[in-house]
Amino acid sequence: ITPVKIAIAEGDGIGPEIMKATLKILKEAGAEIEPEFIEVGEKAYLSGQTSGIDDKAWDVIKNNKVILKAPITTPQGKGYKSLNVTLRKTLGLFANVRPVQAYSPFVPTHFPKMDLVIIRENEEDLYAGIEHRQTRDVYQCLKLITRPGSERIIRYAFEYAKVYNRKKVTCMVKDNIMKITDGLFHSVFKEVAKEYPGIESEVQIIDIGSAKLAAQPENYDVIVTSNLYGDIISDIVAEIGGSVGMCGSSNIGKEVAMFEAIHGSAPDIAGKNIANPSGLLNAAISLLAHIGQSEIGDKIKNAWLCTIEQGYHTADIYREEVSRKKVSTEEFTNIIISNL
Amino acid sequence: ITPVKIAIAEGDGIGPEIMKATLKILKEAGAEIEPEFIEVGEKAYLSGQTSGIDDKAWDVIKNNKVILKAPITTPQGKGYKSLNVTLRKTLGLFANVRPVQAYSPFVPTHFPKMDLVIIRENEEDLYAGIEHRQTRDVYQCLKLITRPGSERIIRYAFEYAKVYNRKKVTCMVKDNIMKITDGLFHSVFKEVAKEYPGIESEVQIIDIGSAKLAAQPENYDVIVTSNLYGDIISDIVAEIGGSVGMCGSSNIGKEVAMFEAIHGSAPDIAGKNIANPSGLLNAAISLLAHIGQSEIGDKIKNAWLCTIEQGYHTADIYREEVSRKKVSTEEFTNIIISNL
Ligand SMILES: CC(C)[C@H](C(=O)O)[C@@H](O)C(=O)O
Ligand SMILES: CC(C)[C@H](C(=O)O)[C@@H](O)C(=O)O
Repeated sequence: ITPVKIAIAEGDGIGPEIMKATLKILKEAGAEIEPEFIEVGEKAYLSGQTSGIDDKAWDVIKNNKVILKAPITTPQGKGYKSLNVTLRKTLGLFANVRPVQAYSPFVPTHFPKMDLVIIRENEEDLYAGIEHRQTRDVYQCLKLITRPGSERIIRYAFEYAKVYNRKKVTCMVKDNIMKITDGLFHSVFKEVAKEYPGIESEVQIIDIGSAKLAAQPENYDVIVTSNLYGDIISDIVAEIGGSVGMCGSSNIGKEVAMFEAIHGSAPDIAGKNIANPSGLLNAAISLLAHIGQSEIGDKIKNAWLCTIEQGYHTADIYREEVSRKKVSTEEFTNIIISNL
Repeated sequence: ITPVKIAIAEGDGIGPEIMKATLKILKEAGAEIEPEFIEVGEKAYLSGQTSGIDDKAWDVIKNNKVILKAPITTPQGKGYKSLNVTLRKTLGLFANVRPVQAYSPFVPTHFPKMDLVIIRENEEDLYAGIEHRQTRDVYQCLKLITRPGSERIIRYAFEYAKVYNRKKVTCMVKDNIMKITDGLFHSVFKEVAKEYPGIESEVQIIDIGSAKLAAQPENYDVIVTSNLYGDIISDIVAEIGGSVGMCGSSNIGKEVAMFEAIHGSAPDIAGKNIANPSGLLNAAISLLAHIGQSEIGDKIKNAWLCTIEQGYHTADIYREEVSRKKVSTEEFTNIIISNL
């Protein structure tokens, strides 16, 4: 096999450490990939790129079509747009797929049976970035919902349910208030759902929907929702399922796909060899499936599962009460490799 | 004492039943109030008022300045604006105060120590109701954040913390994306926080903030946030604290105050004598404090607590595993009265 070229963004904060760990595991597992490092984030900002992305990086991304990205820090300040959002929009990564699963009893959670996937629209909504100050005192932001954007993500969710043999798709909106925008998302959902009679479908208002989700996540299967609601509920389910530190996500476009952890760059613990590489590793496992190397991905997943079942945990997951073995990023990585 | 006149909106669905229960308890407890019923909701719609509020109702509200309101159903369809929102906006009820407390072990929850208050901005944000269809395919909604609106709610939160001796105020925003609108709310929060050096303050991004809130609500005290985020997180904490069916909320304006349950009108169980009056009753207890009859409010609260501690529960709270006594709305009401 010729190795598949992958654009690698090492990220900021804990990014480089967890990327190093992830690439080491991928290599040891025999993944047929060739990493091509791109400059994205802090280094690019420092070299004067206000977008945070080096010009050469765009070429690498366009050639390789697959990116593995560690968390990035966008500088504070009104001049800077979120780099994550720039990547998602520029590359047309319309679907943000976030599977969350409990690993009980190895990772403590109140919801041992939870196993769901959030499919979040990734380009529209309040993330369109259209914001202005109208007077000294009045500020506005535009929320954008389109029919093609809604249809594409909703169809993606039903196709996902079909392929992965999931039983139900829940749509969350706030259309008792936003009758026009969220009303559109709701009505497109109803239209598309009709084409999938074998899959159960339901619509919930986001307030009570996310409340029920936080109280009984095991009742959900696939959830499809707009960008901001998806942002909020995916962090919630990841955290109550164990930790946001463990979840990976796929950003899927027509041509390019980007895989990343759902957590941030945690600059406060950077360089201390204590960060948890699991989020990025799980993203990399999805990447392997995407490029047709799912067997290697499964092998890595099993080794990772085996490691946490043996009780090895980085500091974020470790709980004294349940007497787990606290290990560093490097130790955790090496134990996963020895379990391959 | 001359009884205080209160505007009473009986609501739709389970509204009339839980209002009847609540007023009966208030009367038996000796509350010095004189109910004046107003027509709001279904009846008003049927009589041709598209706003859902009878003209006479406005006069009663303006004279009485205090409303106790059961849940209302706004008809579906683009011609109807949410009646709750119409009331909040027309009456200038800028602060939505939602205390949530665990009643463990009497009501099961994973978070027995949770005791927090959400203070939600109640007029602005995406609730401004400015929405339109720009083309056949592109729909937009305007999010509005103002300096005076933000300052007023944030100051209210700190004053609330001071009066009720709460230690910390947490602000939740998404200003890594909405740098201008949510950025304004954040910066006003920082300004106002400086005036209250005795109260701890912190700012969290709504995604990870609501995740931590759902995973460890006992770490929060007072939370101040904008309208939509407040809507979502208040249902979440109410539900994980026991049930949305138990929480009341106060809508506070400069002149008028409105007290209501946080749950909806649940038409599916209406008229069955099984609804839980606790949300509306807790709202009425806040109302009594507001009109200077907090002693009577405390007496009712104790009788209610006593009732759930004795194990009596309406069907929504009842759990077979913990062998509680399932009672009807009327039975529950009478037991509370006997505990007064
Ligand atoms: C970092 C931030 C811009 C991003 C988002 O809001 O989408 C993050 O929270 C996420 O969920 O990937
Ligand atoms: C019924 C609805 C308009 C209302 C809201 O969104 O504010 C409700 O969810 C609430 O929280 O009081």
